[in-house]
Amino acid sequence: MQILDGKKASQAIKDELKIEVAQLAAEGKKIPHLAAILVGNNGASETYVAAKVKACDEIGFKSTLIRLEEDIAEVKLLNKISELNSDPDVDGILVQLPLPKHISDEEVINTIDPDKDVDGFHPVSVGRMVQGLPTFIPATPYGIMLLLEHFKIETAGKHAVVVGRSNIVGRPMSILLSENKNPGNCTVTVCHSKTKNIKDFCKQADIIVAALGKPEFITADMVKEGAIIIDVGITRTADTSRKTGFRLKGDVLYDEVAPKCSWITPVPGGVGPMTIAALMKNTYKSCQQKN
Amino acid sequence: MQILDGKKASQAIKDELKIEVAQLAAEGKKIPHLAAILVGNNGASETYVAAKVKACDEIGFKSTLIRLEEDIAEVKLLNKISELNSDPDVDGILVQLPLPKHISDEEVINTIDPDKDVDGFHPVSVGRMVQGLPTFIPATPYGIMLLLEHFKIETAGKHAVVVGRSNIVGRPMSILLSENKNPGNCTVTVCHSKTKNIKDFCKQADIIVAALGKPEFITADMVKEGAIIIDVGITRTADTSRKTGFRLKGDVLYDEVAPKCSWITPVPGGVGPMTIAALMKNTYKSCQQKN
Repeated sequence: MQILDGKKASQAIKDELKIEVAQLAAEGKKIPHLAAILVGNNGASETYVAAKVKACDEIGFKSTLIRLEEDIAEVKLLNKISELNSDPDVDGILVQLPLPKHISDEEVINTIDPDKDVDGFHPVSVGRMVQGLPTFIPATPYGIMLLLEHFKIETAGKHAVVVGRSNIVGRPMSILLSENKNPGNCTVTVCHSKTKNIKDFCKQADIIVAALGKPEFITADMVKEGAIIIDVGITRTADTSRKTGFRLKGDVLYDEVAPKCSWITPVPGGVGPMTIAALMKNTYKSCQQKN
Repeated sequence: MQILDGKKASQAIKDELKIEVAQLAAEGKKIPHLAAILVGNNGASETYVAAKVKACDEIGFKSTLIRLEEDIAEVKLLNKISELNSDPDVDGILVQLPLPKHISDEEVINTIDPDKDVDGFHPVSVGRMVQGLPTFIPATPYGIMLLLEHFKIETAGKHAVVVGRSNIVGRPMSILLSENKNPGNCTVTVCHSKTKNIKDFCKQADIIVAALGKPEFITADMVKEGAIIIDVGITRTADTSRKTGFRLKGDVLYDEVAPKCSWITPVPGGVGPMTIAALMKNTYKSCQQKN
């Protein structure tokens, strides 16, 4: 069994970007600039945004963190986005989700200029991805594709079972894995809450992408010997033995499943760091289109 | 074995629309108006466009057929589309594909106002479909969903195998069938040219959607007893015994497969008429959003 080490792969991507950015700077060209908007003080959101800003610093990207009050009027947030849309120095705009309930996610996402939509959530980005056109691919699925690429995992002709059909992970993963690209060209089965005999589908899989958000759902009896496992789940579960009071659990019962696999992502240190690396790649790409 | 009769189902949909349109007219409201652009003189395209115009007439929609020369400059076509975009009387715009080689399909599709994109090919339409938002669904997949609905086919929890991953049929079908809607909620497997053991996948299917464009590809040994078969293929094959010199073949070897099925679409008279009915539904919907 080998580890699909997201820390290592994301570091390699960030190191490459660092060199590219230094090159841009040396040539007097524009440096990539990510603008992140954080509304309110959600703990997990704070952590995620901080990690994104840190990655920018590390690589040499410019970043701007815009903090807005929890009770901000939707129109003010939309105006802020419009301002960033028309700022030629800003390459990528991300609005950290979830947003407070009085604000419409859809309205916010639709307001972001698709040319700066580095999170890849705008319908235009999604549509272009489905049509196989150049676009920004949502960070988590893109990160997983980069991870497969980094470890030179052969995917063509393999049977991938994607458990989960969310707009953010499951759905785009199923599309990307079945596209006529490399990585890609898998026969893909999408399973979800209405699937009967989910175990039977998983047992057939050469590749399982677990993205349902149920801790330790995938057990050893659901996995074929030699399978490749991508665990997208990351749930905080209570653990009084830890200082933080919680531990992170994936959607896969790791200790039991890992020995059967050819490759597996750990949680944490698998898909998580790749998501950030993918966001950085998208921001760089957006800047490149202007340079 | 029962027939998924597309002629019957599409007639029912057109009859309903006819009543709705008469109602609109009686209330002095705007009548749906479809504008179709046909470039050149491709025989199959002529037939398809004529059928669409005829359906409009039958229902009471207004239609405009715009014929452009095979060698028209791309910019002139784009200007024509822009003109239709800004014409408040036009609800739906369709540009019949394929286009001559000197014209970019992508450019043409992107120029159509998404609010009038009744073919559902614009990236915004596709993205919104993937995200489960209200939109125009491409006519063929939408027609198939309407067919399943008309015959009250229970799909939830069934295993659907979609053979083909085209932007126009296979890909949207796989998305629609796996959405949390009715019809929908299938566990969906997408097979394509790189799939190994395609027969094994098909044999597991409760529902097969054959959309690969290879005449009579699906044979009886690939089909489980009681399966539901949707045949999207429609290929002209030479037949000297016929006046036309050709006959239409589906992707399914009908005579052999039909006896094993619970439901099956004939070719012709299955998916084809539903495509037109779906286009009419989209045009009506577009008009409704303005009324």
